[in-house]
Amino acid sequence: MPGAPSSYEADVIIVGAGLSGLVAAREVMRAGREPLVLEASDRVGGRILTEEPLPGVFLELGAQWIGDTHHQMAALANELGIGLYPQFEEGETSYEFGGRVLRGEAFHRAHAQDLAEVDRVLRQLDAMAQTVTVTEPWLAPKADEWDRITVGHWYDAQGLSPTGRSLLEICTVGILAVPTVEVSLLGLLVNVVTCGVTADLLSESEGGAQTQRFVGGTGQIPQRLAAELGERVMLNSPVLTIDHGADSVTVTCRGGLMARGRQVVVALAPTLAGRIMYDPPLPGTRDQLTQRMPQASAHKAFAIYDEPFWRADGFNAQLISEIGPARMSNDSCMPEDTGGPGIILAFLEGENARVEGRWPAEQRQEALRAELARHFGPRAAAPELIVEGAWVDREWTRGCYNANPGPCGWIHFGHALATPIGPIKWAATETATRWSGYMEGAVDAGLRAAAEALADLP
Amino acid sequence: MPGAPSSYEADVIIVGAGLSGLVAAREVMRAGREPLVLEASDRVGGRILTEEPLPGVFLELGAQWIGDTHHQMAALANELGIGLYPQFEEGETSYEFGGRVLRGEAFHRAHAQDLAEVDRVLRQLDAMAQTVTVTEPWLAPKADEWDRITVGHWYDAQGLSPTGRSLLEICTVGILAVPTVEVSLLGLLVNVVTCGVTADLLSESEGGAQTQRFVGGTGQIPQRLAAELGERVMLNSPVLTIDHGADSVTVTCRGGLMARGRQVVVALAPTLAGRIMYDPPLPGTRDQLTQRMPQASAHKAFAIYDEPFWRADGFNAQLISEIGPARMSNDSCMPEDTGGPGIILAFLEGENARVEGRWPAEQRQEALRAELARHFGPRAAAPELIVEGAWVDREWTRGCYNANPGPCGWIHFGHALATPIGPIKWAATETATRWSGYMEGAVDAGLRAAAEALADLP
Repeated sequence: MPGAPSSYEADVIIVGAGLSGLVAAREVMRAGREPLVLEASDRVGGRILTEEPLPGVFLELGAQWIGDTHHQMAALANELGIGLYPQFEEGETSYEFGGRVLRGEAFHRAHAQDLAEVDRVLRQLDAMAQTVTVTEPWLAPKADEWDRITVGHWYDAQGLSPTGRSLLEICTVGILAVPTVEVSLLGLLVNVVTCGVTADLLSESEGGAQTQRFVGGTGQIPQRLAAELGERVMLNSPVLTIDHGADSVTVTCRGGLMARGRQVVVALAPTLAGRIMYDPPLPGTRDQLTQRMPQASAHKAFAIYDEPFWRADGFNAQLISEIGPARMSNDSCMPEDTGGPGIILAFLEGENARVEGRWPAEQRQEALRAELARHFGPRAAAPELIVEGAWVDREWTRGCYNANPGPCGWIHFGHALATPIGPIKWAATETATRWSGYMEGAVDAGLRAAAEALADLP
Repeated sequence: MPGAPSSYEADVIIVGAGLSGLVAAREVMRAGREPLVLEASDRVGGRILTEEPLPGVFLELGAQWIGDTHHQMAALANELGIGLYPQFEEGETSYEFGGRVLRGEAFHRAHAQDLAEVDRVLRQLDAMAQTVTVTEPWLAPKADEWDRITVGHWYDAQGLSPTGRSLLEICTVGILAVPTVEVSLLGLLVNVVTCGVTADLLSESEGGAQTQRFVGGTGQIPQRLAAELGERVMLNSPVLTIDHGADSVTVTCRGGLMARGRQVVVALAPTLAGRIMYDPPLPGTRDQLTQRMPQASAHKAFAIYDEPFWRADGFNAQLISEIGPARMSNDSCMPEDTGGPGIILAFLEGENARVEGRWPAEQRQEALRAELARHFGPRAAAPELIVEGAWVDREWTRGCYNANPGPCGWIHFGHALATPIGPIKWAATETATRWSGYMEGAVDAGLRAAAEALADLP
C-alpha cells in the first residue's frame, strides 16, 4: 500500500516542466508568487532532450535550432549564459528525384522550372496567409473553405510537376511531421502566419527557423531554468486529476502527491492535456479539440563520423530525397572552433517515422547508411555510431514536433485552444500566436499563460 | 483526506459499463470466471441512454435502432425479454433543397437525375468496398490511395450536381456525424464493409441499420445485463491507471478504488481508452492511434406533440434538408398499438451539432420548430416539449455516435485498434469487425474481447 500522500501548496501550479511550463513558473516566481511545477517524467525539458554520447558531443534528440526572429529565445539564452553558434550551411545540398542524385547546382539547372513553380505556390500561400490572423484564424474570409481542404489536396490542385509536388511535400512534412493530407490548408496558413512568411518556414534550407544552435546543447536551457526554480520542480509526478473552483485548484498525481493552488497552468501539448481528468469536466468544445490535435510523428537519426568529410567535398550535408528513408538531413556538428566529429542528422518525418521508424533498428540504419552514401559518398556509409530518437514511444510526449488539428478543427474548435477555463490557463507551444510549434512559441505561450494566471491571483 | 482505498479482486476487470463492456463481463461470468466492471459514471449504458420525460414515453438520447442483420442484438433482446417494434416508415419524406420544400414523390420527380447520380456513387462505393477486408483494410490494393483522400474530396470529384452532392453529404454525415472532409475514403469503405453494403448504410431511409426499436427503451438492455452482474458492476469508478504485467493487472480509480485481476478488457471508445495512464506505457503506434480517433459530434432533439399528426397527412416524419439546423429527422413514436404522443426526432450531426448545437437552447429550438413547420405544417411549430441530448458535453462519452480515424489513420495505425497488448484486450463498437459504430458492433467486440481474455486466463 502507498504511504500517506504528500501535500503541497502554491499560488500557481504548473503541469509540465517543458520549456513553456518552466518559463511560466519562473515568471510566477519573479512576480513574487509561489509556483509549483509537476513533471511526469524523471527529467525536465519535455521536447528538449540533449544527449552526450561522446564527451563534448551534444545531440539534440528534440528541439535543436532557433531562427533569426526568435527574439525571446535569444534573450533567454543570453540571460542564462548559453552561447549560440550558427548552423553550418556552406556548400551544396544533394537532391534525389526521379531516380537521380544531383548536387545542388546541377539540380537547380535541371529543375529550374519545378523550383519556380514551387516558389509560385509558396508566394501564393504567403498571399493567402495575409488574410489570416493568428488569434482568430476561423474569421479569415475563406476560413470555411480552407479548413475543409487538406494541404495535400490543395497542393495536388496547383498544377505542379511531379518533382515540384514532391519537393513541396517534403518541405512541408519537414515542418508538420505528418503527411500533408492530415492537415487543413487553413492549418498550414496558421503555421505560416505565426512564423512570418513561408520563405522562413518552408524554404528548403528552412533558413528562417533554423539558423542557430546552443553551445553545449539546448538541454541546458530547461536545466538552468529548473535550477532557478529549485525544489519548486517535482519530477516523477504525472498529473491524473485537476479539480477546479472559481479561484482554487487541487491537482493529484500518480503516486499520491497532491497540490493545492489558486491557478493552474497546463503546459502540455493539447492531446496530453486532454488526458487529465478535470472536475468539473471541461466543456465539450474544449474536449473535442484535444481529441483532434494529435502529436505529429518525428524521428531523428544522427550519424557520427570521425570528421565532417562532406565539407571538403563542397556539401552542406543537406539532402532532399523523394526516396528516403530520410527525406531531409543536415550538418549537426559542434561549433567549428571546437572541432569534434562529423555529424549528419537525418530526419524521418511523417510517414517515414511511422513506417521506417518501426523497422528493426538494424534494417533502418542500413537503409540510412545506404542513402547517405548515395548523397555524400562511400565514407557516409560507415558512421562510427548512429544515435536515434523516436518521440512517439516516449510516454510523456507521444509525438513531435507539435500538433495541428485535422480538417474543420480550426473553424469548429480552434477558439478553445488557448482560452482559459476559470483558473485553468493553457501553455505549450501549440497555444502560441508567435512561432507556434517552436521553442519560441513555447516561451511565448508560457509567458502569456503566466500573465493570465498572475492577473487572476487575488 | 480520503479513507483507506477499497480493494477488489477478479479474473477479468472490465473498464466501462457500456453495452460492449457489459456483454464482455457477462461472457466472463458465464464461463465461470469472475468479472469486475468499473464504470466512471453513475449509471450503466454508455452511449445507450433512455429518458422517460412523460410516463410510458421513452426517448432514446443515445442508441435507438437495430437493423435487419443485427442478429446478435436481436438475440440479446430476445434473451433479456425485451420486445421489438418496427420503425414507422409509412408515408412520404419531405425534402428541402435549393430553397424549396418538396414532398417525396414530387422531389423524386424533380430530382430523378440527381438521385440516379447518387445511386451510381453508392454502387461505386460498394464495388470499391469489395476490395477491402474488415480485419486488414490497410492491405486493400488501393488502401494507400484511398486513405489519403477525404470522403468529401472524393465526393466532390464524382461529377455530382449540387443537389446530388448535398444529398450524399447529408446521408453520409448521418452515419459518420462529422463533415465528410474529416474521414478518409478508406475509412468510409471500412464502415461500408463492416455493415454490409452502402444501400444498408447510406440510403436515405437508412433502412438496413434502423428498422426496429425496443419496446420500453434501449436502456433496459444495459440495465438487465447489469442486474445479472449485480455487485460486479461498480459505478462512479473512473479508471485512472492500469498497471499490467504478463499475466496480471492492477487498475486504480479516482476516489481510491483499486482492483487486481489477471486480464483487463478496456471497453471504451479509443479516444477515452487513450486517456488512461498505462504502466508500462503502451507502444507509440497504439498511442498515436488513440490520438487520431476523435468521437464524432451528434445532438438529438425530440419534439413531442399530442399526436403524430403528420401520419394523417401522409408523412413519415422524415426530412432531408440542406438548410437545417436538422439535416434529417424521423418518427420516434412509441409502438402503434400503445398509442402515445407524436414524437419527431431531429438530428443535428457533424457541423450542425457543433454550430447550432452550441446556440442557446431557446434559439436552437426556435430554429428547429420553424424547420419542422416548413416540412410538416404549422402544427409542427408547436411541440408541447422538446428534449435534447448532446453527447460532447458528457464527460464519460465525449462525442457520438462513434469514431473514425482521419486521413492516413487506417494505413498507419489501424492495426493497433483491436490488437491485444498482453493482458489488455480492447472492446467498444469501434473495434468491431461487424457493424462497427452500432450496438451490434458493441456486442460483437465485447464477445470477442471476452473470448480473448478468457483464452489467456490460466
